[in-house]
Formats: sequence, structure tokens, C-alpha cells
Amino acid sequence: MLDELAEPVVAAPMAGGGSTPELVAAVSNAGGLGFLAAGYLTADAVRDQIARTRELTPKPFGLNVFVSERSVVDGSAVAAYAERLAAEAQRYGVPLGDATGGDDDWSAKLALLSEAHVPVVSFTFGCPPPEVIAEVKRHGSEVLVTVTSAADAREAVAAGADGLCVQGQEAGAHRGGFTNDGVDHTGLIPLLRKVSAEVDVPLVATGGLSSGADVAAVLAAGAVAAQLGTMFLPCPESGANPLHLAALAAGDTPTEITRAFTGRPARGLVNRFLAEHSGAAPAAYPHVHQLTRDLRRAGDQQAMSLWAGQAYEFARPLPAAELVRELAAGARSALAAAARRWPV
Amino acid sequence: MLDELAEPVVAAPMAGGGSTPELVAAVSNAGGLGFLAAGYLTADAVRDQIARTRELTPKPFGLNVFVSERSVVDGSAVAAYAERLAAEAQRYGVPLGDATGGDDDWSAKLALLSEAHVPVVSFTFGCPPPEVIAEVKRHGSEVLVTVTSAADAREAVAAGADGLCVQGQEAGAHRGGFTNDGVDHTGLIPLLRKVSAEVDVPLVATGGLSSGADVAAVLAAGAVAAQLGTMFLPCPESGANPLHLAALAAGDTPTEITRAFTGRPARGLVNRFLAEHSGAAPAAYPHVHQLTRDLRRAGDQQAMSLWAGQAYEFARPLPAAELVRELAAGARSALAAAARRWPV
Repeated sequence: MLDELAEPVVAAPMAGGGSTPELVAAVSNAGGLGFLAAGYLTADAVRDQIARTRELTPKPFGLNVFVSERSVVDGSAVAAYAERLAAEAQRYGVPLGDATGGDDDWSAKLALLSEAHVPVVSFTFGCPPPEVIAEVKRHGSEVLVTVTSAADAREAVAAGADGLCVQGQEAGAHRGGFTNDGVDHTGLIPLLRKVSAEVDVPLVATGGLSSGADVAAVLAAGAVAAQLGTMFLPCPESGANPLHLAALAAGDTPTEITRAFTGRPARGLVNRFLAEHSGAAPAAYPHVHQLTRDLRRAGDQQAMSLWAGQAYEFARPLPAAELVRELAAGARSALAAAARRWPV
Repeated sequence: MLDELAEPVVAAPMAGGGSTPELVAAVSNAGGLGFLAAGYLTADAVRDQIARTRELTPKPFGLNVFVSERSVVDGSAVAAYAERLAAEAQRYGVPLGDATGGDDDWSAKLALLSEAHVPVVSFTFGCPPPEVIAEVKRHGSEVLVTVTSAADAREAVAAGADGLCVQGQEAGAHRGGFTNDGVDHTGLIPLLRKVSAEVDVPLVATGGLSSGADVAAVLAAGAVAAQLGTMFLPCPESGANPLHLAALAAGDTPTEITRAFTGRPARGLVNRFLAEHSGAAPAAYPHVHQLTRDLRRAGDQQAMSLWAGQAYEFARPLPAAELVRELAAGARSALAAAARRWPV
């Protein structure tokens, strides 16, 4: 599949509403690869989205699934953070959620994969065991695993992954690596090099890409395709929250990686909540995500998770198909120009 | 000059001993652009290095000059850090240096530029005033300014810079931007995009690059050349400290950005000194650099500044000319392959 894309552009799965069937179908219809996001949804809701996508496109598309957190969560740290957030809950007149953990409906989603035969399945936040990957492949899906280190890459390929989604620190939203310890800042180009040195499977490159020339850069670096998320958020087919889009459009705020909203490192625009709580947020996912759910929905840009990659200011409200064509054409001409200037 | 390079490879100026006339000449003789580093040296020592380089190559080369810090330094924060380091000084039996500040022999170096007619002059840690840039250009030098943000880029081009050295957060050693506030993690690819959106001058891209494919990536992204530092450190022509080289060769340590050694953000291998003092180090350059001078020279890898870019583990002890040829040939073939796969 990855080797047969008409255009080297993948729309990143954006859980929480961004990736709609309409967005996914538009990207795949334009020759790229759209990605549904199963995260936070029930398996039944995902089934409906797959069916709807198939109504909108005959082309291949992908589905991203969260893998259960393998790190041990410190319950007392979660309780201390909840105590800290009590004033926020009072301020917005909403309750803190129950930090019960959970596995994001993992078994039901695996069962769905066996019946849905989605062309490409990608996993994030961990590496499924080899028998799970084998089962998903047996049902006709190409399997990608999201990695943020060379160690992740070795483990994923050893477990049977057909390819990897290599995510640099520039990426918006969650870091997709296997562990939740520390905050790593390895940039996309050195990360591609570290991963290429360890494994020999197709690599999709993602993190901070915003133009055709950027797509060309990762193709020259050896990737088979570029994955972009933030650039697709303002597309009319996207389901992004309007307050989120307005904050992106303002374009005047830096981004930072934080655990404040979900307990896992994720890159977003710096706002009051991020600035005040990043230092105190524990490595506890999805517990912190559950705690802050209603706070994030209170309608205040200063208390929402405003996920954004490092090049977010270049996002524009183009139809998704037009964006795919612009990125692909720009990549092709950037490669031609550079190859002409520096011939073999 | 930058538009006429035979190969798109620049060897980064590495102050503190790394960039010798032998290294610079070898890189320029191989068709790239070598760079002398005036930082920390007297103007007289720089004059000698320029003369020696001219004995070794008829080709153009560059000279990098530090611009005086514009940030105001908090004397009490420097005194508090000195107090903290007293135990380190005792441990190694060396004195702490006098944190007197200073301008790195700026006036004498400017005078030298007027007589030496070095083909390319780059500035780091700030932007010289327009009249200084004009004077350096009048004496036949092409002027580059190192930038780490779009704001830096606008200021440098407005001041008359012919081109920019765009430094991503992946780079080893000092961040070369104009201010010393905060630690910015903008990756090289998004930074190139932000800078390209603001100015229209040739861009040299640097930060975490280690292979021909990485050089190809930044050329595809729009840069006229790639600048690499860490990859040249183990070359036989380099003047790098053997303890530093041994730490790089071990290849098993992450890098981080720290002010612990110099008072300015710089990326190095994590060692004991970095881990213990990063949190306490003030933004005070060159004061902290002066304080720690003898500590860094005490011969303990755990107390030295082990500058390293994010891809340092790929550095190998190749002759510099061979490294330039390998990078350039790799870049050309990576561009050809990607352009063939994704034709216009």
C-alpha cells in the first residue's frame, strides 16, 4: 500500500474529532492516504466511521488505534494533580472526571479490525504483541507502528510491523512513542537517520511539516511519504473545534510539549492552563486525560488543549483535496529543482 | 560565494579548538566550505589561523565571529551560581574563573576583518549593526548571520546580511540566536519554513545533519547548502579534545540543551555536571563560561562540555575531504532517487 500511493501525502489521524470520514475520503480520493482515528471512540463508533468512509471513497485509507499504556501509573501523583486542578474545576463550574484508567476499548477494536479489513492500520502509544500484529495482517491490513526512537523502531519491526510512522518532536498533539518517561526532543531528520540505521521497512515521516518543500525534504531523507496533521485541521472537511482553529489562525503563540492536559507528552499552543500546570502534571495516561475532560470542554481557549505542530501558522482553510495536490506538486517540483542543481 | 560552491557542504565553525586551519582547508579543497572559528581567540591568534589556512588552500573559506551579548546579565544570579560551583572547584582542585564578561576582542576582530578579506564571514550570538555589516562587505566578504527564529532572520536581512545560517534545535554546541531568554526547540525543517516565509536570501541549514540523505533533505527544503559540525569532530584534521571524541564514540548517551557550562543554551551529551547544574544555571554569557573554564579543563568527562548534535553517534574518523565527498555524493544520489520516484 505505502509503496503504491499516487501522492506521498498522508493525513495524520487526529483523535478527538479532527479526522472525519469526509476528511479521510477527500485525502484518499486525491491520491494521498487519509487516516481515521479510533482513539477515544467506542468500537461501534469506529465501525460507523469506517462504513461512512467507504461510502465516500473506493480508495485505500487507514485507521489509527491507541495501544494501552504500559507504564505503571502512580495513583498518589494522580490524586495530587486532581487536588491541584480542583480550583480549575471550580472556576469553570465543571466536575473533574474519574481517573479510572482503561484501555480505550482495545479488545472490541481488535475484534473490529478482524472484520473491517481496513487497508492500513497504525498503532500509537505502544507496540502490540507479535500475535496481534500477525492477526491484523492476516485480515488484510498493512500494519504501521508509530515510533519516536530507534529502540521503538527495533521493537516494532521485530514484532512484525510492515512499516513505521516516524514522529519527530516537532509534531503537534501526542508524542506516539512506547513509553511515558521523560520528554524527548529528537528532531525528525536525525530521528529518521537513527531509525533507518536500525531497520529496513518503509518509513512515513511526520512532525512539523507544512509545505511541498518539506514533503520533498523527508522524501529525500528516505521516507516513502510525509504525514501532516495540523495542516489539515482548518480544512472544511475537518471536525476540529472552532475555538481551536481560531487559536491556530492567530498564529502568534509558541508551542510546547506538555503533560498538563492528558498525562502524556503532547505539543500544543502555550496557554494559561499549559503554563500553570505543565510543571506539576504526572506521567499518567489516560488518567489525566480523564480528569481534565470537562475542563477542556468548558469553552475557554486558555484551558483547552490547543494541539499544534511547530509550523502551525502555515495552516490554511483549503479543501483537503486541494491541500494534497498542492503539497504533492510542491514536493515534486522541489525535488526536481534540487536534483537539477545537484546532479549525480 | 554560497551560490558557487562545488559541493553543498559547509563545515561548521567550532570554537574552542575543533576548527583548525587544516580542517578548514581540507573541506574547502574538497569543494565544500570550511569555517575558522574566531570565538574565544585573540584577534592575533585568528590572524595567524587565517594566514595558515591560506597556505593550505587557494579556495574560499569562512570565518565565524561572536557578537557581543545584548542581554542584561544578573550579577547576583552569577554570584549564586559561583557559590553553587564552589564544591566543584574544590573537588577538582581548580579555581573558578573571574566572571568579568567581555566582548571576545570584538573591536580588534572587526579591524582584522577589514584587512583580512576573508571570503565569507558569519556572525553568531547576535546581529551586528548595519554599518558594521556594510563595512565587512565593503572589504570583500560575503556576510552570513546565524539565526534561530524568523524574528532573527528579519533583523539580519534588514541589517544587510547576504545570507543566513539557519540553526535548528538539533544542533550541537551553542544555539546561535540573538537572545538568551528561554530555550527554544524549533526543529530545522519548520525553522527553514518560518525563515523562508520572511526573507529571500540564501539559507545554509544546520542542526542534526549526519548523512548525504540529510544534506539532500535540506537542499530539497530550499537551503543552498548544509552545515555540519559534529560529523567533522573526529576527522584527523580536527583539534577536538580526545576525551570529547571518546565520549562521542561511546554513542550511548542522550543530548540535552543546557546553560550549565557557559550561561548560554548549548547542546551536549548528558553528563554529571549537566544533570546536576542545568536547572540552576543563569542566562549569563560569557560569565558562566568564564566561571567554569578550569573545571571544564580538569580532565573529567563528567565535568566537561561534551558538545554534540542529535545525530552525533554517526560521526566517524574519516579524513575531512573524504567526508565532504561522501556527504555530497550521498546528497546527489538521494535527490536523484527521490526525484525519479516523484517526477513532476
